[in-house]
Amino acid sequence: MSIPVFYEPNPLSNSYLNEEESIHAHRVLRLKADDPIFILNGKGQKYQARIEVSHSKKTSFKQLIEIENSSSPAYSVHLWIAPTKQMERMEWMVEKCAELGIQSIGFFHSRYSERKELKTHRLEKIAISALKQSKNLFITQIQPILPFKQLIQELDKNTKDQKLFAYISNPPSEGLAKCIQLNQSYHILIGPEGDFSVEESSGLLAKKWIPFSLGKTILRTETAGLVATHSIHFLHEV
Amino acid sequence: MSIPVFYEPNPLSNSYLNEEESIHAHRVLRLKADDPIFILNGKGQKYQARIEVSHSKKTSFKQLIEIENSSSPAYSVHLWIAPTKQMERMEWMVEKCAELGIQSIGFFHSRYSERKELKTHRLEKIAISALKQSKNLFITQIQPILPFKQLIQELDKNTKDQKLFAYISNPPSEGLAKCIQLNQSYHILIGPEGDFSVEESSGLLAKKWIPFSLGKTILRTETAGLVATHSIHFLHEV
Repeated sequence: MSIPVFYEPNPLSNSYLNEEESIHAHRVLRLKADDPIFILNGKGQKYQARIEVSHSKKTSFKQLIEIENSSSPAYSVHLWIAPTKQMERMEWMVEKCAELGIQSIGFFHSRYSERKELKTHRLEKIAISALKQSKNLFITQIQPILPFKQLIQELDKNTKDQKLFAYISNPPSEGLAKCIQLNQSYHILIGPEGDFSVEESSGLLAKKWIPFSLGKTILRTETAGLVATHSIHFLHEV
Repeated sequence: MSIPVFYEPNPLSNSYLNEEESIHAHRVLRLKADDPIFILNGKGQKYQARIEVSHSKKTSFKQLIEIENSSSPAYSVHLWIAPTKQMERMEWMVEKCAELGIQSIGFFHSRYSERKELKTHRLEKIAISALKQSKNLFITQIQPILPFKQLIQELDKNTKDQKLFAYISNPPSEGLAKCIQLNQSYHILIGPEGDFSVEESSGLLAKKWIPFSLGKTILRTETAGLVATHSIHFLHEV
C-alpha cells in the first residue's frame, strides 16, 4: 500500500490532523499507531511522520521529518471569476485549476451575475484533495465572493501585478500570449455567463486592465477560467 | 427571443429535423409554422430556414438559405483516450474539448484500463450541444471504443499525421510546444488512470510515436485530455 497523504497547514506547531483528516485516517484508512504518513502543508513542504494515536476526531502524529522543500514558482496566477448558476461547474473548474497548480481562485458578482452567493467550504475541500493527488506542494487558496466594485478597488491597490480581463469585442482583443510579460503575478478576471456590463468593461479599460481574447469559439465561463489559467502555465513552459 | 439553433448533418437533402431536435423544437420551444430557425450541419455551414410543420417526431423546415460557410482549419486535433471509471469525467471533457473545436475524440482500452466499454450516444449529444453554443461550425466526431492494439494498427496506417502520446518518464519528455510541427493533423493518445504498461509505451516508442509531457504536476486523465487539446490550439494562436 502506498503511504497516505494528509493536509495540515502547520504541522510544526500542531501535531494533530484536523477532524476531516482524522476521520479519513482513522475510519477510512484504519491507520494505527506507528503507521507512516506523509503530510503536506500546502506552502511548499512535504513531511514524513508516523501516527501516534489514531482517533476519529483528533489523530496525532510524531517523528515529523521534512523530506521535500519546494521554492515558490517565479510567477503566480490568481483567477477571479463570476460563479456559474450550477455550482458543479465551479467545482470541477476549481479541481482542474488546482491540478494545474494555480495560486488562488476568488469570486465576484457583477451586474449580470446569475449567482450572488457562494459557500467556499466544499471548494476548499476540493483544493485539498487536488493538492494531495497532483504532487503539487502549494495549495490553491479559495477566496470568498465579493461585489465587483469592491474586488476591483482591492486589486487596484496593487500596482505591480499584471491585471487582465477576458473581453469579447469586435475586433477581438489579443490572445494571452501577446498580452502578458513573463514571470509576474497575474490577476485574471472572467465575467459571468451574461458577460460584463458595458459600464463594467469600460471601467476596467479606463483603469488600465488589459483585455484579452481566448480564441474564436465561445467558451462557457468555467472553461474560460481553466483555459486562461492553462494558457499562462503553458507560456511559462514553452 | 434569439433565433434557436438546430443540428442536422444533411439539411440540403433532408428537410426534417431528427426526433430529438423535433422534440426540442415542438415541445420545448413550441415553435410554429413560419418561425425562423438556424441550422448547423457541423461541416462548416450555417443555414437560415423557417419551420414548415412543427411536430414532436418530425419537424420539417423550408426556405433554406446558407448564411455562413467556414473552411476547415489548417490543423486538426484527434484525441484518443482511455475512458475513466466515472463517465461524468469523460462527459465534461467531451463538452470542453468540443467548445475548443476539437475534430474528434475516440476511446481505447489498454492493459490497465478501468473501463472497457463505453456508450457513445450521450457523448454525441454533448458534442451537438457544444456545437450549438460555441459558435464553432464543425462538430466534434465521437468514435467508439477500440482495443489499444487495434487502434494503434489503424492509426499507424496513416504515415503523414503527427502521432503523440502523453508519457510520464524520468527525465520527463518535452512539452508539446517542442514536440509538434504546426498545421498538421495530430493524433494525441492519453493513457488510463493506471498509465500505459511498459510494453505498451515501449511499443509506441518503437513505432516512432512522440512522447510528450504535460508539466510538473500530475493531471487526472480527463484534465490531461483537455490540456493537451488546448495546448495545440494555443500553439496555433500564439
